[in-house]
Amino acid sequence: MVMKRSAVIHEERSCDAALARAFEFLGKRWNGVLLGTLMEGTASYSELRRAVAGISDSMLSERLGQLTAAGLIERVVVAGPPVTVTYTLTPSGQALLPALQALSVWANDNLPA
Amino acid sequence: MVMKRSAVIHEERSCDAALARAFEFLGKRWNGVLLGTLMEGTASYSELRRAVAGISDSMLSERLGQLTAAGLIERVVVAGPPVTVTYTLTPSGQALLPALQALSVWANDNLPA
Repeated sequence: MVMKRSAVIHEERSCDAALARAFEFLGKRWNGVLLGTLMEGTASYSELRRAVAGISDSMLSERLGQLTAAGLIERVVVAGPPVTVTYTLTPSGQALLPALQALSVWANDNLPA
Repeated sequence: MVMKRSAVIHEERSCDAALARAFEFLGKRWNGVLLGTLMEGTASYSELRRAVAGISDSMLSERLGQLTAAGLIERVVVAGPPVTVTYTLTPSGQALLPALQALSVWANDNLPA
């Protein structure tokens, strides 16, 4: 598309600072899908590995550690035998639900399957 | 945290398919911030480069190409001189606004600055 030059004076563009912080997490591969999976409920490490096709063990551990450090998920050890490690959303993580629902609606309407 | 084992039988976990498609874009570094910046209005290539600190020219071009191919942004050539290339959201890109607003609210409440 070619337009004639018109008055294009505007403020310097920038991304909303809070949104930029959100994308420090969500702009890392796998994090969004991990949080989206945990929206369904608590999941074990091996369930998360199956849910996120293609992720390596080391990457899954790293991402879970980052999300735990950020206070979005909590690691819960279920007494055994066998001992099972599960992950569950904290209230901060659960608070993402409206945003993820809005993203899902948008993707349904605007991204072909 | 350690819990006693209780009935933990549940459906196999998975991420909502539409949400997973959303994160094919938003889970790539810079894409979220680029879309968030364009929410402020049309921006030139050089404005986007300034808004997204640390992005290289080749990465910015690649990302803009992907977002254009996905129909979320449109490349507009403004007749010169000097000729200026600007980017603007399509209706599909603009439809992301409610989700990005929800993410911004969440980050304000849950991610420390």
